[in-house]
Amino acid sequence: MKIEKPVYYGDYLQLPKILNAQVPESSKYGKPAHDETLFIIIHQTYELWFKQILHELDSIREIMGKPFVPSTDLSVINSRLERVTTIQQILIDQIRIMETMTTLDFMEFRDYLVPASGFQSLQFRLVEATLGIKPEHRMEIEKQFFNSRLKPEDRKQLEMAEAKISVFELLEAWLSRMPFSNFNGFDFWGEYSVAVDKMLKQDHEIISTNPGLSDQLRTMELKNLEMTKETFATLLDADKFAAWKAQGKVRLSQKAMFSAVFIFLYRDYPALQMPFKILNSLTEVDEKFTTWRFRHAIMVQRILGTKIGTGGSSGHEYLKSTTERNRTFLDLFNLATFLIPKSITPELPVSIKNQLDIVYDSFQS
Amino acid sequence: MKIEKPVYYGDYLQLPKILNAQVPESSKYGKPAHDETLFIIIHQTYELWFKQILHELDSIREIMGKPFVPSTDLSVINSRLERVTTIQQILIDQIRIMETMTTLDFMEFRDYLVPASGFQSLQFRLVEATLGIKPEHRMEIEKQFFNSRLKPEDRKQLEMAEAKISVFELLEAWLSRMPFSNFNGFDFWGEYSVAVDKMLKQDHEIISTNPGLSDQLRTMELKNLEMTKETFATLLDADKFAAWKAQGKVRLSQKAMFSAVFIFLYRDYPALQMPFKILNSLTEVDEKFTTWRFRHAIMVQRILGTKIGTGGSSGHEYLKSTTERNRTFLDLFNLATFLIPKSITPELPVSIKNQLDIVYDSFQS
Amino acid sequence: MKIEKPVYYGDYLQLPKILNAQVPESSKYGKPAHDETLFIIIHQTYELWFKQILHELDSIREIMGKPFVPSTDLSVINSRLERVTTIQQILIDQIRIMETMTTLDFMEFRDYLVPASGFQSLQFRLVEATLGIKPEHRMEIEKQFFNSRLKPEDRKQLEMAEAKISVFELLEAWLSRMPFSNFNGFDFWGEYSVAVDKMLKQDHEIISTNPGLSDQLRTMELKNLEMTKETFATLLDADKFAAWKAQGKVRLSQKAMFSAVFIFLYRDYPALQMPFKILNSLTEVDEKFTTWRFRHAIMVQRILGTKIGTGGSSGHEYLKSTTERNRTFLDLFNLATFLIPKSITPELPVSIKNQLDIVYDSFQS
Amino acid sequence: MKIEKPVYYGDYLQLPKILNAQVPESSKYGKPAHDETLFIIIHQTYELWFKQILHELDSIREIMGKPFVPSTDLSVINSRLERVTTIQQILIDQIRIMETMTTLDFMEFRDYLVPASGFQSLQFRLVEATLGIKPEHRMEIEKQFFNSRLKPEDRKQLEMAEAKISVFELLEAWLSRMPFSNFNGFDFWGEYSVAVDKMLKQDHEIISTNPGLSDQLRTMELKNLEMTKETFATLLDADKFAAWKAQGKVRLSQKAMFSAVFIFLYRDYPALQMPFKILNSLTEVDEKFTTWRFRHAIMVQRILGTKIGTGGSSGHEYLKSTTERNRTFLDLFNLATFLIPKSITPELPVSIKNQLDIVYDSFQS
Repeated sequence: MKIEKPVYYGDYLQLPKILNAQVPESSKYGKPAHDETLFIIIHQTYELWFKQILHELDSIREIMGKPFVPSTDLSVINSRLERVTTIQQILIDQIRIMETMTTLDFMEFRDYLVPASGFQSLQFRLVEATLGIKPEHRMEIEKQFFNSRLKPEDRKQLEMAEAKISVFELLEAWLSRMPFSNFNGFDFWGEYSVAVDKMLKQDHEIISTNPGLSDQLRTMELKNLEMTKETFATLLDADKFAAWKAQGKVRLSQKAMFSAVFIFLYRDYPALQMPFKILNSLTEVDEKFTTWRFRHAIMVQRILGTKIGTGGSSGHEYLKSTTERNRTFLDLFNLATFLIPKSITPELPVSIKNQLDIVYDSFQS
Repeated sequence: MKIEKPVYYGDYLQLPKILNAQVPESSKYGKPAHDETLFIIIHQTYELWFKQILHELDSIREIMGKPFVPSTDLSVINSRLERVTTIQQILIDQIRIMETMTTLDFMEFRDYLVPASGFQSLQFRLVEATLGIKPEHRMEIEKQFFNSRLKPEDRKQLEMAEAKISVFELLEAWLSRMPFSNFNGFDFWGEYSVAVDKMLKQDHEIISTNPGLSDQLRTMELKNLEMTKETFATLLDADKFAAWKAQGKVRLSQKAMFSAVFIFLYRDYPALQMPFKILNSLTEVDEKFTTWRFRHAIMVQRILGTKIGTGGSSGHEYLKSTTERNRTFLDLFNLATFLIPKSITPELPVSIKNQLDIVYDSFQS
Repeated sequence: MKIEKPVYYGDYLQLPKILNAQVPESSKYGKPAHDETLFIIIHQTYELWFKQILHELDSIREIMGKPFVPSTDLSVINSRLERVTTIQQILIDQIRIMETMTTLDFMEFRDYLVPASGFQSLQFRLVEATLGIKPEHRMEIEKQFFNSRLKPEDRKQLEMAEAKISVFELLEAWLSRMPFSNFNGFDFWGEYSVAVDKMLKQDHEIISTNPGLSDQLRTMELKNLEMTKETFATLLDADKFAAWKAQGKVRLSQKAMFSAVFIFLYRDYPALQMPFKILNSLTEVDEKFTTWRFRHAIMVQRILGTKIGTGGSSGHEYLKSTTERNRTFLDLFNLATFLIPKSITPELPVSIKNQLDIVYDSFQS
Repeated sequence: MKIEKPVYYGDYLQLPKILNAQVPESSKYGKPAHDETLFIIIHQTYELWFKQILHELDSIREIMGKPFVPSTDLSVINSRLERVTTIQQILIDQIRIMETMTTLDFMEFRDYLVPASGFQSLQFRLVEATLGIKPEHRMEIEKQFFNSRLKPEDRKQLEMAEAKISVFELLEAWLSRMPFSNFNGFDFWGEYSVAVDKMLKQDHEIISTNPGLSDQLRTMELKNLEMTKETFATLLDADKFAAWKAQGKVRLSQKAMFSAVFIFLYRDYPALQMPFKILNSLTEVDEKFTTWRFRHAIMVQRILGTKIGTGGSSGHEYLKSTTERNRTFLDLFNLATFLIPKSITPELPVSIKNQLDIVYDSFQS
């Protein structure tokens, strides 16, 4: 290899472009506001990080889009997801920097920015779309915003991203390809179903005999148990599950959900260690975006109060409403619902164990 | 001074007591669960930090309970509040430690803990009460829990704490004693009212002439502006404000709210620097507890799913509902609503400026 | 299962013991110092977390002490190590809480604590010993401290811990059992040695031809390259390596180091994914304790200055000197030294690849 | 006010420039390395934050450069410093993102970057210079680097920055203008000197009588006490202090140091609350840059090992050596050395108290 041209730090990072991209509007009006620089720079760092997140997600989409996910790529997927969550933690934490700007400081330049708004961040919408948010998951108000506030070329780019296969869809396809519901002749779901019954009976006994419960609490508990029973029944019944899905209570297919449950229950087998890590990292991605949305809404409320903006940003109420929406991997988040204690988890037949195992002993002789 | 007895680290910290207080229930049943130790220890650290927070809040209550808050104690109050928020940040961050425990790990000992529940943390309720949550702010379900789940002696201690004067009440009294609404003959609120009108007119003009707004958005904006107008009218009218208060939309009295607005607007005068810091720190206390509640609810959902517990903890839905409740200093949080830009903030008369100032020049000759 | 006795939150956590273990010395002298409570409580939380870390490390030691580490336990080891690093991050972050105590606040009770000192934390020493710090790694001053400041029973407990097999030793044994240096007839180290030569030649060419280097820098670079060459030569030569080890420049055996390099280079094969994660987590454990020591030393300097304490704590100079000492897994930290680019890493024969792989395709049909 | 032109998010933030400034070198060589994007983006975020820090420091320099620092600007200075430390915390925390890049990932593009290096970050050097690092504080190796590695125009800009008056110098001038050493006829330093003697005598007594000290420790302690005595003697003697300064053991003038001690001891008086906050924030700035340097050095060691780079970055050994150098406000950091307990701090005469006070009672009638 021959290096043709020496590389210098500033040129490499294109600092002249990066560091000359802060032009406060307040200065244009002859009333420079000290804090506008912060406002610009923090948003620029957010956009840089969004670009990095897209870079990671796109590469994951490429790997998972192969007919078979290569075994040596599983750790790559997971490392990149862990990088995404590490970045997300910084996105959350650096809200503290924004909060060093008080309302009065913000008021000095706020009016000049009409109608700019964070809603117009194309990249954030691309991240959502890449993860798996489709137009049908959006609130009406969001769609309106996209129509009225996004530039036509941005809207088009978003629509193209929404049309592509998402990380969610690839995950579902990957999980659906797995054969765990009836694995080499082992009827796992039959056995799981038996175990669930056993667990629910045990729960019933605990509630019935627990001397710490008042009659009122006991009645409530027993009612709750009936609901839990129904939840499991829905998981295990194709028609009920389909109805759930139709109602939007779940996004994954029943088959994919089965595989996810299987992976969680037998996560310690070498073949499932990395798949488990991946599901966990996606759960973390979901959790961190949810947390970011919440912290962001709170910060907006603190700086803007409940006043409604001249630029039409209807503010933190909208933001809070999105906290619980737009959660692509909520199914993984709620997976805990379907887990059963180790003590009653069906033992796998030796032949299946062997398939999921690597004989490390041969390395340790 | 004479040291009578040497002090040793372990004795001083009473480590034999502290480090022998972890007795897993699962071990009593002969099925020791590895993660139960974590579960015990993390809750114990939470309780230690709650004790520390109470220690700080109690000392603040003592200082603010004096007929006049001594000028040299203002920085003490603020330092202690900043300590509280520093602790709160750790309370939030260490949820990550809890999240290293997976659902399956938790299931190994969960059933043994019935009906123990974080609801029974007396100290957390004392923190809420000390800050200013009274029984009338509680949700019905919370009161029921206190009746059914708290031990009688704990319930009594909570009732005593609720009966005491809270940090919120002391803050209100302190702000109400301030004379800023009509300060030494200067009719601040008259001037403020004029400035608000000016600002609203300006907003009207911006919305009307802004070429970036579609007709639809413009109409929406003008409607929003009417609402903003009404909000200010409510602040400035004693009867309307009283109606607001009766509806629970605001907790501070109108007089206290006036002082808070005054402090925010003229925060840079030496006499107001520390009061501003204190208001800000209380806002932060509120923000951080809100964030903690949210993160806690999310963590519970992740570990428990939507399944309803055998111990009757109805889980994360209840927890989420408290995120927006129990916000003692929400008024300070929403104060941004009533601020006006520096450019139209009424100039204070020299005599008042002098009263709010310290002539530092004399130190710098 | 039958729950025999209801469990209550406060009893379960033994809160009466935990929350009554704060007895300020300053109160005994009739001069209660407000901040002494913080000082006690923060140290108690540290001790609780140390106990949790020991709980995790002990369980890891048990697993790794088996003749063969079961394949299904690798993820358990790693999860527990990740928990340890998550706790360590909080140990670092909560130093901020300590820093809310100023020098003057500390001075109000400091003299009463003589000669208590953090040096006397037995558990911290047990953590070090469990990880792998033996008496021969200690500085002379530390040993003196242990003799003069630790209670005899604590000293004995530490000696017993030092005599036990440590996580470091178990790691070394595990790595040494691996057959990768000459794996099923594949002479990996021969191939690696060839690749290293190739890399060093390439480096030589880059330095020689890079137009961005001045003559002076080029000369310096070439000299550096000679040193790098020597480093690799040492790794690959049993005698030189032994000399290195004797000088304390490296702690792992040559064989163990080989395996670690192999795992890092081929980390994406399913059989090596979890071993790689484990090595990485141990690196992180080392990094975080190093960071903690540094932050701790800085905090002590900030609160105590350079003044030497009446209790004999010679303060931050000693603390800083331990930052770079007592690094059990420094070898893993420095492993980067021996890695080579993917492009020249020897391709594994198919038979070996198969041994390291899991055929996931069979799951994805 | 009339908004002439609508402002859109993407244009306002100049996103086309910002988001098209990532051009990996590896792609130019036809071997695109996935992680190079991260490497570019994280450095760009660092540079954006450095720009923001410079923006804050420059504004502080402007305020402090006035003949008298206006009393209403003290809180502005402090808020901006607190913003700087909030940013610094993110600079430290986001090192975790960099650490998601492993050595092997870095090796895929490292060789293409020769001789680019973080040493060439002009802005970081400007931050150092603005804070107060002058050429005479630099290590020889740093100066050499500047000569050989910085572009001539960057070197010139750095020299210009070094020639300007720094925040350190402005702080020293501000502190020196304060009259506290002999304030309105009150001989503070005489009284302080008496108090110090008293404290040292007390320390002597404690050491002599403390039953917890062995003879050996007692002897050591008494020797330490002699050193402490000497330290105080140096502070109080103009000639000895000058000698200290000449040796580089201290940077502030004796007069400035006196004022700083005065402010720390009487920090709760309204006139000193904000000056105390400012000194504290500067201490924090120093602490956080020191921590950042340390974490950065550790990260470099982890990714590069001890191998010396082809680009001449001699790596983490150099970086570690700067951790303790380049500490502009080390004097404030070490100020704890000169503080004395409240119980023996000289009581201020009423006339001086009044000067330092604001009569808040008049606000609270």
